[in-house]
Amino acid sequence: MKNAVLAAIGDELLSGARAEKNALFMAGHLHNKGVNVLRIEEISDEEEEILSLLSRWVGKTDLLVLSGGLGPTHDDRTRYAIAKYLNCGLSPSNAMYDRVVDRVRNDAYRLAYTERCRDPQAMIPDSAEAVYNPAGFALGIRFEREGTTVIALPGVPMEYEAMTRQELPEVFAPDVEHCWASVIILGIPEMTIAERIPEVINNPALHVSILPAFPQVELIIRGDAKTVASAERLIRSRFGSDVLPQGCMSLAEAVLYEARLRGVKVACAESCTGGKIGAALTDIAGSSDVFSGSAVTYSNEAKRNILGVKDETLREHGAVSEECAREMAEGALRIYGADFAVSVTGIAGPDGGSEAKPVGTVWFGFASDMETRAVMKRLPGNREEIRTRTVRFALAELWRMLHNG
Amino acid sequence: MKNAVLAAIGDELLSGARAEKNALFMAGHLHNKGVNVLRIEEISDEEEEILSLLSRWVGKTDLLVLSGGLGPTHDDRTRYAIAKYLNCGLSPSNAMYDRVVDRVRNDAYRLAYTERCRDPQAMIPDSAEAVYNPAGFALGIRFEREGTTVIALPGVPMEYEAMTRQELPEVFAPDVEHCWASVIILGIPEMTIAERIPEVINNPALHVSILPAFPQVELIIRGDAKTVASAERLIRSRFGSDVLPQGCMSLAEAVLYEARLRGVKVACAESCTGGKIGAALTDIAGSSDVFSGSAVTYSNEAKRNILGVKDETLREHGAVSEECAREMAEGALRIYGADFAVSVTGIAGPDGGSEAKPVGTVWFGFASDMETRAVMKRLPGNREEIRTRTVRFALAELWRMLHNG
Repeated sequence: MKNAVLAAIGDELLSGARAEKNALFMAGHLHNKGVNVLRIEEISDEEEEILSLLSRWVGKTDLLVLSGGLGPTHDDRTRYAIAKYLNCGLSPSNAMYDRVVDRVRNDAYRLAYTERCRDPQAMIPDSAEAVYNPAGFALGIRFEREGTTVIALPGVPMEYEAMTRQELPEVFAPDVEHCWASVIILGIPEMTIAERIPEVINNPALHVSILPAFPQVELIIRGDAKTVASAERLIRSRFGSDVLPQGCMSLAEAVLYEARLRGVKVACAESCTGGKIGAALTDIAGSSDVFSGSAVTYSNEAKRNILGVKDETLREHGAVSEECAREMAEGALRIYGADFAVSVTGIAGPDGGSEAKPVGTVWFGFASDMETRAVMKRLPGNREEIRTRTVRFALAELWRMLHNG
Repeated sequence: MKNAVLAAIGDELLSGARAEKNALFMAGHLHNKGVNVLRIEEISDEEEEILSLLSRWVGKTDLLVLSGGLGPTHDDRTRYAIAKYLNCGLSPSNAMYDRVVDRVRNDAYRLAYTERCRDPQAMIPDSAEAVYNPAGFALGIRFEREGTTVIALPGVPMEYEAMTRQELPEVFAPDVEHCWASVIILGIPEMTIAERIPEVINNPALHVSILPAFPQVELIIRGDAKTVASAERLIRSRFGSDVLPQGCMSLAEAVLYEARLRGVKVACAESCTGGKIGAALTDIAGSSDVFSGSAVTYSNEAKRNILGVKDETLREHGAVSEECAREMAEGALRIYGADFAVSVTGIAGPDGGSEAKPVGTVWFGFASDMETRAVMKRLPGNREEIRTRTVRFALAELWRMLHNG
């Protein structure tokens, strides 16, 4: 398999009500196997659009994976569009659907519901094959035409993932041939990075993507294993301690890696991020050995009662202040019995800003047995962007503290 | 403007390294204005792909917005592809770029960097216009051909958003004509919902999308204002207390709305979600009046020291137990001085499961001045899905508690 096209079906995608997730998942796995994803398309629920998609790509790509439009309700049109495309009728794949029903035999409520959805969820175009759904009810559809394998799967991400793993085992098998590396550099702008590694950027055997996301820039380097490895070595030596450790795909991973290496525990105290720093650290499985927890203290009372921020600090300097950030970090260190702590307190907006402390003003506190310090940043963007950047900056500084401290 | 096509350019999208965000943002705003988004396409960095995109859609849609490929590095090809398409050269839009440079005059480091990027970031095809970038450095490009307005903007979401607002003010102006409503129903499967509102589903004047996301199902209803309003009333009366309050677009909003209505404060205690419940509640601006905070206690020590979970509870029942969930909720109620508290403690996996407590086992605790109770759920999916579902279930139950209690 050389080429693939991924398509997601659903008005909720074109109306901006839902973000596309399945093609994103599949693209990553195909890419890792050296399969070239020619395009990702998001199209509407309409039968004609699904038909037109099939006409556009069958015969022009080795694989076409469709996601969505196989549920039990009126807006699920994929099975009918495929039957039209293949110019055939539809019949129920009862034997396969029985296997789905068998899974809920001991749950009378779900059993009744699953049976009620048999039509249309078991209906398969006569010139295609049914695809078993190990994680949900709706069967998938598979057929071949003009050298293209077409697989239509439900849009529920858990079902899509389980069924692609089942239908395309070769894509999910371990691989050695097609290699890529990700190198994350902190605090240096993308153009400066590109200028400092011309041998990598201009190497025709490599394909380099440069992806900035304040305060980090990620380089994704693709090519054969040997060239990629030597490019990665060169970048690492050139940017030294501004590069995250090898194998760390995110700031959170780097923090956990470094804490594990040093045998220390980290904790957080969060105000404007509301738990997002803790969430980022615990996104990664097995974080409990080095991450103790995070005290989300949104109110002044919580900052005082839980973290021990002083009354006079809140009264004289306010919650968004150097003093408060320092006391929050020290509080987190103490109540969690941690070795390193980071705190954030800021104004994410859209309200709450003032001339002295405009929206985007965030104080970060860092505490360890050795020292407490605080730093202020004025972060641009809307509420969501300010919160995301606050999380990234807090993790970046926590990593530097663990790495150098 | 009737139709639009949105395109995102970047190998990082087709390799699954980055999720597409700009078309998603724009699609929502266009949809609200009744503009039909014909398709969303994600294509590679290559000049030929950008050229082919222009050829495919110019003359076939009123608006074509491109995102990405305007940065300063080798993989940014959009400006060159447009020049080829228009069969013209490129020249620097120095006067406009000077306005960008002016913004960083007092920062020598950024000034030098911005000047160094003038070529290529100020380069505009001669037959097109430059678009000012109020949030970043790279200029955008705009031209008209065969009735299609083409606007190419940088891929950085903050810049894309600022520039679409500037270039397409009509899309972001308030509107009354095209109406839609979102109704969120808790705990009822999608097919059952559809069967109970045939008048809505079968009304040709309405377009209804049904979007399940355990334990909720969202109905998005589009049409003229009057028909949408009466459909919404019918759905609300039919599903009664299983429907989130009007205007609440998410469970988190419903929790904050209900707490505000009752004049109470809520708090959380989180283990396996690591702060995601607090993050969801604080995603919404102005949550500080009713949300006190969340104690993220990932380790047993933190559960004991911060929330007052008993030693013997952890020893005899473990951290994932009814007793621990109850004590965590009561602890959060106490330390935050809140009126209602929710706690979660579970096994998100992939490790840590056992026969008695498999991965996906989550205990939820709910505490108020009146009562403490706990409930256990076995949630399906991988680590990320289990955590997401845990957040949704906790918020759904917290809302019911506030709504009915």
